[in-house]
Amino acid sequence: MSDGTPGRPAGGPPGFHTMWRDLLPLGRSAASGGYRRYAWTPADTDCRAWFREQAKARGLTYEVDRNGNQWAWLGDPLAGGAVLTGSHLDSVPDGGAFDGPLGVVSAFAALDELRARGATPRKPLAVVNFGDEEGARFGLACVGSRLSAGQLTPAGARELRDADGVTLAAAMERAGYDPEAIGPDPERLARVDAFVELHVEQGRALDLQGARVGVASAIWPHGRWRFDFRGEANHAGTTRLEDRHDPMLTYANTVLAARKKARLAGALATFGKVAVEPNGVNAIASLVRGWLDSRAADEDTLAGLVAAIEQAARERGARDGVDVEVVRESFTPVVEFAHALRDRLTSLITRSGPDAVPVLPTGAGHDAGILSAAVPTAMLFVRNPTGVSHSPAESADEDDCAAGVTALADVLEGLACR
Amino acid sequence: MSDGTPGRPAGGPPGFHTMWRDLLPLGRSAASGGYRRYAWTPADTDCRAWFREQAKARGLTYEVDRNGNQWAWLGDPLAGGAVLTGSHLDSVPDGGAFDGPLGVVSAFAALDELRARGATPRKPLAVVNFGDEEGARFGLACVGSRLSAGQLTPAGARELRDADGVTLAAAMERAGYDPEAIGPDPERLARVDAFVELHVEQGRALDLQGARVGVASAIWPHGRWRFDFRGEANHAGTTRLEDRHDPMLTYANTVLAARKKARLAGALATFGKVAVEPNGVNAIASLVRGWLDSRAADEDTLAGLVAAIEQAARERGARDGVDVEVVRESFTPVVEFAHALRDRLTSLITRSGPDAVPVLPTGAGHDAGILSAAVPTAMLFVRNPTGVSHSPAESADEDDCAAGVTALADVLEGLACR
Repeated sequence: MSDGTPGRPAGGPPGFHTMWRDLLPLGRSAASGGYRRYAWTPADTDCRAWFREQAKARGLTYEVDRNGNQWAWLGDPLAGGAVLTGSHLDSVPDGGAFDGPLGVVSAFAALDELRARGATPRKPLAVVNFGDEEGARFGLACVGSRLSAGQLTPAGARELRDADGVTLAAAMERAGYDPEAIGPDPERLARVDAFVELHVEQGRALDLQGARVGVASAIWPHGRWRFDFRGEANHAGTTRLEDRHDPMLTYANTVLAARKKARLAGALATFGKVAVEPNGVNAIASLVRGWLDSRAADEDTLAGLVAAIEQAARERGARDGVDVEVVRESFTPVVEFAHALRDRLTSLITRSGPDAVPVLPTGAGHDAGILSAAVPTAMLFVRNPTGVSHSPAESADEDDCAAGVTALADVLEGLACR
Repeated sequence: MSDGTPGRPAGGPPGFHTMWRDLLPLGRSAASGGYRRYAWTPADTDCRAWFREQAKARGLTYEVDRNGNQWAWLGDPLAGGAVLTGSHLDSVPDGGAFDGPLGVVSAFAALDELRARGATPRKPLAVVNFGDEEGARFGLACVGSRLSAGQLTPAGARELRDADGVTLAAAMERAGYDPEAIGPDPERLARVDAFVELHVEQGRALDLQGARVGVASAIWPHGRWRFDFRGEANHAGTTRLEDRHDPMLTYANTVLAARKKARLAGALATFGKVAVEPNGVNAIASLVRGWLDSRAADEDTLAGLVAAIEQAARERGARDGVDVEVVRESFTPVVEFAHALRDRLTSLITRSGPDAVPVLPTGAGHDAGILSAAVPTAMLFVRNPTGVSHSPAESADEDDCAAGVTALADVLEGLACR
């Protein structure tokens, strides 16, 4: 990884390489090599301390908003018309190093680059770390940005529970934050004129087109559905096949049906999380709970796909003597990023040349998608050579990360300094 | 539940009903209503204290063998030629009240009935509680009896680990037992002439034949195989279907294949336990680990069935780009119970009439199956009206339990008192 901040004065803030190195060991599992930076855990606290250090090293105004999102301001936070950049520092279970952190590290590095260029901001600039973006612990993604944008009620957030039954309210409190303070933050968002989130690409579109950096056009609508398959626990060694109500069969058939129907619809459907009761080797399961993640280019296709998967589950459940219940746990409508801002980005990234800046949709949800309802929002993607994401194997080349910082600096300079 | 010990003198030991009532709350989950009596846990310790109390209340000689199995002797433990009865007190996850405990409670109740009948034992009688029969915690069934019979090495047992990584050695030590003392116990087993285990039936064969009590002919060969399906973790929202290596698909196909092939073979195959990594809603799994429990009437059929399931898993794995590894974690050969003892049992259960005592095989493993290699062994089954087992819904009628105690007393009287 290159330093990414050429020309910064000796004794100045840590460059890209140093920031990256300091962040790398935090919340990393020795067993998997992946990250377990879940909201309001000690690993999260470590990442937050790192963010605060970066703000301090640059003399930025540091603040934490009512929802625990961290902000670092260059210029007057109250002046209005601000340009905001950043991403998140938390991770999925055994996630990679880039998803989230690349956007935060690149944000600080881009501010350094502006200073090195001698650019003078006319508007306030801010770096943000949105809390609990991945939803790995409490099952709901983008909690920090959803709360601020008024897309999640404070009571609903406080009652979210992790796998151990700990509420989000209790977890926040243990981490030293006040769960009673959470809620919408329209005044703060009204002071932001544009939010630009840089993110490692989570697919291979840029690689296939030979481009280092791209701009987002839209986020596919997506959601999570919990499928509860309820049968009857019984002894695996003595219960005749014809007497069984085995929910594992219904689940298995639904997994295969989801894949087939997603392929036919040109969409995505994944079962990646399962919980089984009693989960004993010699016991037929009483309950198999599987979570469906599904996404499509438009909302009608997505609704049709999920309905078809649910129907397949019910039909097989009737054969197996298994009850099927489906609960939609979250849903995010299609996000079409502000066209004017998107076009501005592609024209500002002059150093790469406009031909090399593809505009592409993504199936992944982001804080930028949540904020787009309240603030003009855009996203920059950095090439991912393998397309692998949400895995310890997630990667990005050093030169591409440097190109991302340059592009982000170009954008911030264009939006805030001219 | 009837008292089951008619005619016992006032002030004597607790009758069937009282024993059952005292045992019922121990290790019961308020959430599921099922039992979580796992080896060397506080719930197990509570059950062991109950056993000791029963021995004491009857003036029996109480001892714990080197492997933590509990014994209660009527007569001289060292005299030899003993008749042993009993079962186990531990449970599967969220198991029922009868699997195991019915055999121990009935054993004490049968001793009470012999005394009430005025029968005088010519041979020592003993009640046993074998430790860790279900293998719910450390994944291997019948650890207590396997160790005593020399079918499991002490080193192999000590190294078994539970889901939290705690070794069996550490768990025993925490519960106050010496893991260095465990090992074969041929001297003790040589003092036993016959072992008779009473157990609730784990199927509906007795119910279909209208019989309260039956005698076991054989235990089907059975085993546990761990299937590791290894793919590649990736983002569920951005990875194209054709770029995936999703082990959940391979697992799902294997679950359905196992059921179909078991049906064709007239055998049993069950996936009831699964572990997924990273187990995140928006992450394609990197590893799905599923455990196959399979059983058949003979060893060739079982071997052929498991090989066919493994082949189906590998074929689908090749399509999905998923590696498949299969490890046999345990295997118990067919057990044909001693014919002479089995015939003696059927003739001794005179009160029910020989026509009403079916002789039937079972697919469930038992300590009696392990001990049968070292000691002439037989089993009595008590009718289970629904056939449900390994579930909180497991049940047996009061009158059938009383008939079981009577039959066991008949057997003990015939084997030890005449």
